[in-house]
Amino acid sequence: MSHRIHNFCAGPAVLPEAVLRQAQTDILDLEGTGIGVLEHSHRGKAFARVRDDAEAACRSLANIPDDYDVLFLQGGASHQFAMIPLNLLPDGATADFVVTGTWAKKAMKEAASIGAVHVAATGEDDSFHRLPDPESLRWSAGPAYAHVTTNNTIVGTEWAALPPTPEGVPLVADMSSDIFSRPLDISQFGLIYAGAQKNLGPSGIALIIIRKDLVERGRDTLPAILQYRTHAKANSLFNTPPTFGVYVMGKVFRWIEAEGGLKGMAERNGAKAQLLYDFLDASSFFRGTADPASRSLMNVCFRAPTESLEAEFIAEAARQGLDGLKGHRSVGGMRASIYNACSLESVQALVSALEAFETTHRGALAG
Amino acid sequence: MSHRIHNFCAGPAVLPEAVLRQAQTDILDLEGTGIGVLEHSHRGKAFARVRDDAEAACRSLANIPDDYDVLFLQGGASHQFAMIPLNLLPDGATADFVVTGTWAKKAMKEAASIGAVHVAATGEDDSFHRLPDPESLRWSAGPAYAHVTTNNTIVGTEWAALPPTPEGVPLVADMSSDIFSRPLDISQFGLIYAGAQKNLGPSGIALIIIRKDLVERGRDTLPAILQYRTHAKANSLFNTPPTFGVYVMGKVFRWIEAEGGLKGMAERNGAKAQLLYDFLDASSFFRGTADPASRSLMNVCFRAPTESLEAEFIAEAARQGLDGLKGHRSVGGMRASIYNACSLESVQALVSALEAFETTHRGALAG
Repeated sequence: MSHRIHNFCAGPAVLPEAVLRQAQTDILDLEGTGIGVLEHSHRGKAFARVRDDAEAACRSLANIPDDYDVLFLQGGASHQFAMIPLNLLPDGATADFVVTGTWAKKAMKEAASIGAVHVAATGEDDSFHRLPDPESLRWSAGPAYAHVTTNNTIVGTEWAALPPTPEGVPLVADMSSDIFSRPLDISQFGLIYAGAQKNLGPSGIALIIIRKDLVERGRDTLPAILQYRTHAKANSLFNTPPTFGVYVMGKVFRWIEAEGGLKGMAERNGAKAQLLYDFLDASSFFRGTADPASRSLMNVCFRAPTESLEAEFIAEAARQGLDGLKGHRSVGGMRASIYNACSLESVQALVSALEAFETTHRGALAG
Repeated sequence: MSHRIHNFCAGPAVLPEAVLRQAQTDILDLEGTGIGVLEHSHRGKAFARVRDDAEAACRSLANIPDDYDVLFLQGGASHQFAMIPLNLLPDGATADFVVTGTWAKKAMKEAASIGAVHVAATGEDDSFHRLPDPESLRWSAGPAYAHVTTNNTIVGTEWAALPPTPEGVPLVADMSSDIFSRPLDISQFGLIYAGAQKNLGPSGIALIIIRKDLVERGRDTLPAILQYRTHAKANSLFNTPPTFGVYVMGKVFRWIEAEGGLKGMAERNGAKAQLLYDFLDASSFFRGTADPASRSLMNVCFRAPTESLEAEFIAEAARQGLDGLKGHRSVGGMRASIYNACSLESVQALVSALEAFETTHRGALAG
């Protein structure tokens, strides 16, 4: 018999159990076709239904306007780090970045191999524990686009509201780790991209929501596979797409819908994060590392008094069936990733484990 | 209850049922970890075992020498169509192509967006039904690499033995549709690439076997994600890999091993193809379209006397639980893709259906 534990991995991450159970059936026989979901032609009727439903569910969930294309592309956010400037950054133009963590830096580094980049603001002096003051942002003159990372998994910060970006400049957002965790207004963006493996599905596929006028901007000399227009024109079927990823994403979209849509997710995620942050704020043993005003609802980063106590807690938690709590290797400490599919029960179990550990070890520490 | 039918899809294609049944378990709980295979961190111990076993099984199956890297990369062959010239075709150099079908043309077209290309031979005048005479190949002076497509899915041709390529020039082979269908000598190649969705696993991942000296050739200005060296140095963990694809490929490698390895596959595939071609050769109703000397053991393309009889057969076969027999939309007719995981029983069922259809309709046709 399979059992399931509490999974706080930062990505790939926990997925809704109902989706996994449906996948168990469909992997051998999709909807009574006698052929599993991995084995269906991407040009056949069965997969067409899967793909069309995934796009329809995505559009409905996020109320995506008709002048945006929804693309399901192979690869993840790191592939988009290159594909975005290859398509949207012409010779002589500049892309502006709000640098709020490691992933924003990586996005900027790939862009810098292709064209000019400008740092509108960086939180690096604060080790990224605090998001830049929106008033401090300094944009270049007429950038090709402005890039933000909406949630920073490693340090556990997230923009509660988007920072203001220059009028008329396409806003490009890496939403890999908080997409569809709360309502959003698509019309604010030129391009949204997200690797699927946190809130949407398995790794190896990215969701791209792109305003149609931006789709055409890739240079003619760019290989076809790297052009957004190739995929937009072909309904993401220019080449064989990651069909299983599209399938799982579609099921996750329908699961979100059944759980109350993006508003339902925001309530669910707010409740989970509040439970954990309230505990950390009240604790005299554990402490959160992100500036309170910059706190992420998706990744909660925290420390214990010593590194050896952290290692001890992580090991003790694993024994109790709480996994994935080790902080990113670049910052250490602990991190609970509590994406959409993470349940309130998992966070309650974590808080109980933290409380018990604190009770047991506070005295020893003082002594 | 799930039932399984005979699947002759060209890709995504049938996978070994034992692998799918294992995936059903592991998708909810991988090896008793309490976390499904889609949900494990790509940097955790459980996935490290999955990845390491996939590479070890691959190396063992194909007897891959130590001076070759084995990479599991996101995307499929179409992505490699761009990545290969971006890495291996410097300014001023030429890449030579043996053009044996639509996919070879597409590979050449992407390379032509990056550098100079040369056609060493083309079968286009024969509508690709016959492979070029090896004697007819004309190479450019000192090409950066020579590119061949070992099996051509659309027209059903396959090189029984590789055509000779110039001494000292890296041979680059698209083996998407016949990799690991028979023994091969890796040392003949500079780079082998294969989208997984025919003989190896789900779509959205490619297997790359690359000689180590070629890994370093990408230009410094190339985005990191598009450089082979990035992935080779990071053991295919530079970014989050398509973890489920790696998992399935590993299980398929172990399945091939249990079925007698590449030699076992060659016997199995030879028996299946012979059964079907023998039937077609003996039939006065159906006929194979590929030149007999160029015939593929993976994709068997054939016609009936009229297009309406073809449509009738495809529909009748579908009613009998034989799916995916429609030829590629660019050539019409019928095609049975009989990759590694396709069983002899499936081919026997197909031959029975063809025989019955012929018996029923031959008279009507004459009448």
